[in-house]
Amino acid sequence: VSSSTIEVTFHPAGVTAQATAGVALSEAAASVGVAINAPCGGKGTCGKCRVRVRSGAVSEPTAQELQLLSSEELEAGVRLACQARALGECEVETAGVGDVVVRKDLDEDALRHYPLEPRVKRRALALDPPELGDQRSDLLRLWDKLGTAGCSCRARLAALERLPGVLRGDEFNVVATMLDDLLVAVEPRDTARDPYGAAVDVGTTTIVAYLVNLNTGRIEATCATLNPQTRHGADVISRIEHARDVPGGLEELQGEVVGAINALVGRALQDVGAETNHLFELTVVGNTAMHHLLLGLDPQYIAQAPYIPVVSQPLTLYASDLGIEAASGGQVFVLPIVAGFVGADTVGVMTAADITSRGPTLAVDIGTNGEIALWSGERLLCASAAAGPAFEGAKISQGMYAAPGAISAVTLNGEDLEISTIDGEPARGICGSALFDATAVLLETGALELNGRLAAEADGLPPGISARMSGEGNGRRVLLASEDIAHNGHPVYLTQPDIREIQLAKGAIRAGVEVLLAEAGISADDLEAVLLAGAFGNHIRPESAVRMGVLPPVDRERVVAVGNAAGAGALMALCSESERGLACRLAVEAEHVELAANPRFQMAFMETMLFE
Amino acid sequence: VSSSTIEVTFHPAGVTAQATAGVALSEAAASVGVAINAPCGGKGTCGKCRVRVRSGAVSEPTAQELQLLSSEELEAGVRLACQARALGECEVETAGVGDVVVRKDLDEDALRHYPLEPRVKRRALALDPPELGDQRSDLLRLWDKLGTAGCSCRARLAALERLPGVLRGDEFNVVATMLDDLLVAVEPRDTARDPYGAAVDVGTTTIVAYLVNLNTGRIEATCATLNPQTRHGADVISRIEHARDVPGGLEELQGEVVGAINALVGRALQDVGAETNHLFELTVVGNTAMHHLLLGLDPQYIAQAPYIPVVSQPLTLYASDLGIEAASGGQVFVLPIVAGFVGADTVGVMTAADITSRGPTLAVDIGTNGEIALWSGERLLCASAAAGPAFEGAKISQGMYAAPGAISAVTLNGEDLEISTIDGEPARGICGSALFDATAVLLETGALELNGRLAAEADGLPPGISARMSGEGNGRRVLLASEDIAHNGHPVYLTQPDIREIQLAKGAIRAGVEVLLAEAGISADDLEAVLLAGAFGNHIRPESAVRMGVLPPVDRERVVAVGNAAGAGALMALCSESERGLACRLAVEAEHVELAANPRFQMAFMETMLFE
Repeated sequence: VSSSTIEVTFHPAGVTAQATAGVALSEAAASVGVAINAPCGGKGTCGKCRVRVRSGAVSEPTAQELQLLSSEELEAGVRLACQARALGECEVETAGVGDVVVRKDLDEDALRHYPLEPRVKRRALALDPPELGDQRSDLLRLWDKLGTAGCSCRARLAALERLPGVLRGDEFNVVATMLDDLLVAVEPRDTARDPYGAAVDVGTTTIVAYLVNLNTGRIEATCATLNPQTRHGADVISRIEHARDVPGGLEELQGEVVGAINALVGRALQDVGAETNHLFELTVVGNTAMHHLLLGLDPQYIAQAPYIPVVSQPLTLYASDLGIEAASGGQVFVLPIVAGFVGADTVGVMTAADITSRGPTLAVDIGTNGEIALWSGERLLCASAAAGPAFEGAKISQGMYAAPGAISAVTLNGEDLEISTIDGEPARGICGSALFDATAVLLETGALELNGRLAAEADGLPPGISARMSGEGNGRRVLLASEDIAHNGHPVYLTQPDIREIQLAKGAIRAGVEVLLAEAGISADDLEAVLLAGAFGNHIRPESAVRMGVLPPVDRERVVAVGNAAGAGALMALCSESERGLACRLAVEAEHVELAANPRFQMAFMETMLFE
Repeated sequence: VSSSTIEVTFHPAGVTAQATAGVALSEAAASVGVAINAPCGGKGTCGKCRVRVRSGAVSEPTAQELQLLSSEELEAGVRLACQARALGECEVETAGVGDVVVRKDLDEDALRHYPLEPRVKRRALALDPPELGDQRSDLLRLWDKLGTAGCSCRARLAALERLPGVLRGDEFNVVATMLDDLLVAVEPRDTARDPYGAAVDVGTTTIVAYLVNLNTGRIEATCATLNPQTRHGADVISRIEHARDVPGGLEELQGEVVGAINALVGRALQDVGAETNHLFELTVVGNTAMHHLLLGLDPQYIAQAPYIPVVSQPLTLYASDLGIEAASGGQVFVLPIVAGFVGADTVGVMTAADITSRGPTLAVDIGTNGEIALWSGERLLCASAAAGPAFEGAKISQGMYAAPGAISAVTLNGEDLEISTIDGEPARGICGSALFDATAVLLETGALELNGRLAAEADGLPPGISARMSGEGNGRRVLLASEDIAHNGHPVYLTQPDIREIQLAKGAIRAGVEVLLAEAGISADDLEAVLLAGAFGNHIRPESAVRMGVLPPVDRERVVAVGNAAGAGALMALCSESERGLACRLAVEAEHVELAANPRFQMAFMETMLFE
């Protein structure tokens, strides 16, 4: 391996990494914010980080690659990004499974009403030009007009540097931008443009940014990507270990998430024709590990008893302190967290629901962790269940994120299954919502037994379904998409081991729900509403969630799928100072129920792993 | 000129600049914070930037050098730093006239009493270790102990990054450092050390930093240097023009002053064995131009009618926003200014004197600009007179700063003059205080006529003095130090053109004083006290200042030399929040009297240029 610098270009992102020859493709990709899915943490065992090398010199296939890739794939230039090393200039395609395209649309019209009162305020001002009889400084002149005169003032230095030219640029007609009482920008009135903000949901697996025009409150662009930290492993524990055990690991993880946010928000700004200096505020939600890693805070004590986070309070920071690109003086509001594993994402869910203004309500956010909030009418209880990344496609043999070609829904149509894919493209794999559906349908038809075993005999099953089943024991599987409707003719199956992963994941979440209900002294029947959050392609269908048992048995009408509720909470905090206050109050009011090492949880889990 | 990179090492500073071959020695010096005096702005006309090249390849002497340097000097390697260019590695001595050694000692015991109540506060805390029944975050645990619990909090991110390790480092015994309600540092209690602050006086010509232990309020180190911006010219107008006319000029000037402050404060910290992360706050005074250049603010409108500064209010900034090296979260408080040419230095002088708590008082700060404050008992008036840098040694043929070997006092001893030099070293030149003395003594003995002409005839003069006078007309001069007591045997003279420069400088300041007295409707007799500020080697002697006429004729007992009063104001603002408040109130209360283009000033100046 020579030490010369080479360039690796990634498509369709169209970005080029500069690195030392011999760099793993996954590492080169991460260095420029291109996320490649690698749930095994780069060990070469999951085979999910497939990329295609279009041209250029790369290393010979490793033993892992020879085992996981077909000869046709190798022939076509397909490689594992964690294994293949660039030896010279090369061009690499990352499109396909593990693509950067992830859907987390948020329909702001479907959200409850909240007032538009962003922290960013704009004031158009006509100042009196100075003269010998009025030698007030440029800033004081502005200040007096803002009606905030006084001895002391708060202004961002960068807003002052060009102030003389700005004031004199349009005859002392200016637009001033304030963050609370801090002056962050002054522009000539004739060229000023609307201020923007971004609500960012940092998930363990995916990161999504909503770009909002703060004058209208409308989302003008949504961008999502895989969290580039996934290359160190799919779950939060692998990230925490990386931060703790690898020298410089914390800085590396922070750099990855910051780089991904910058890339996302930059793309969103480009989409609407705006620039970084129009972006004045970001709000961020994420679980506690993501929260700490974004802030560069040592996360190790979250993961060991007594599970103590560094900081739980809401934080307002300069974007520049985090390396996040925004207007000079632009700020980041990080929603508060509740406890070690109940993060700002849960606070976002509770805020989006305004949960304590309702009757008894259960909110469940299904992701790599299952975040659970229960408002009993008197107490607000929270917990986090480590569901693992199964519902986001990891550990599922043909699992994938909600990208085009993902099977996103499975329904029973007469005697057979019917599937639909995102964008109607040929099926490439299965995403979260379809796992719920498929499990529910298979249970309903008897193809899946309550103990989680796929029926060994096809007797009595609908003929269409029995025709889809094949294999024995752990090799038994259900065909979801046959080769004629699948991408590249590779059929998509749901396997017996996949079902086991689903059982573990749904069991963990459901056990958490049961513990909270017991702690609050209420039963599922007492619940007025069950809010089902989780940002999969075509949201989870409530009936499937109840049927497969991740939720307790309640009337279908009481279950409401609310999409990316954590992201909605971030959006509300961005657009409304009173919603921000609500988030802070809810975080203080919430009581954390520790599930780890909780005997009641262990007991419940033994039961909830099974189906009903 | 090749484009290779070379190294130029400066002694006695011992620092090495890296630059492109062909760089002027003055530029290489500025790039590493070594200030070389160049009042002509690098035109090669003043001859003050002499350095000695010990070894290495430099360009051939220019026409200017051949004119200004003697053949002995050239033989010895003496060159003008603005003319000589380094062609390869070289070693350069900057000691001598224009040395970086400048004295601005401040005796804090001689100042009026002020309370020690710095903004930086320390709290030693013993926290309760966390347990499963007490899962508060590390920060909240600290916060609760500080007694400042609440939903929102202010903490510096950098203080949190290592917080888990710090808390667990000394069994949850910590020392927290706060700036107001902002947590900036947490240290294990067993290794915490006293916090430091620095009061910085940024003069047009010299910069001085006082390093203060904020637990004791004592100055532990004082460092001073020439302002490296002097290489662009001695007065503020040349700097403002550089910022306005040269692309990148403002950034260059800002970088120079920031670099000098970092070098000064770094040296001071090293002197006391402390480190950058022990420095939590700096306070800064300076005239309006220095103030704007430090902050990177466009200064051009200060210099043209109606003379408008960008900002006049006091500013509190993160040191990092200015590139000033301090503890993470460390801040800079910049004292307010009054108007275009009445700067934070004047506010510092007024604060140090607590001027409005006295009877009618005049305060005059003699530097490159003469800053004048008059408290009439009812009104507080301020003005700034452009005295030019004569009193700091520029434009005086053998003028120099208050460095070792500078003649700092001249007295009449019987029939002859007697001089004394700083540190008793052989005389190298004349510094400001001696200019006042010499003028006063020469006037007193009749050797200097009231119209400013040196007596052409020696008749009637004390014999010692008449023996010192030689030459005719503009070439007439007075020997201050003969070759036997002078450095390198070069005698030191005060010349007729020097006297003319002194007349202009003292006339400008005195005219300003007269305008303020008239505006306030009082006379010099009404003054209870005259405070004479100005930081020359061995402060200005009041009797000389009155005799040579820079001050109005008042009883000797009423004149008090207060040394570097601007620096004292910065010191008080650093050590005491109530003094900081006083500075803010005085800046608001002060009325600015514009002298530029003021007919009354022009009239007064015609008179005050003459002696009395």
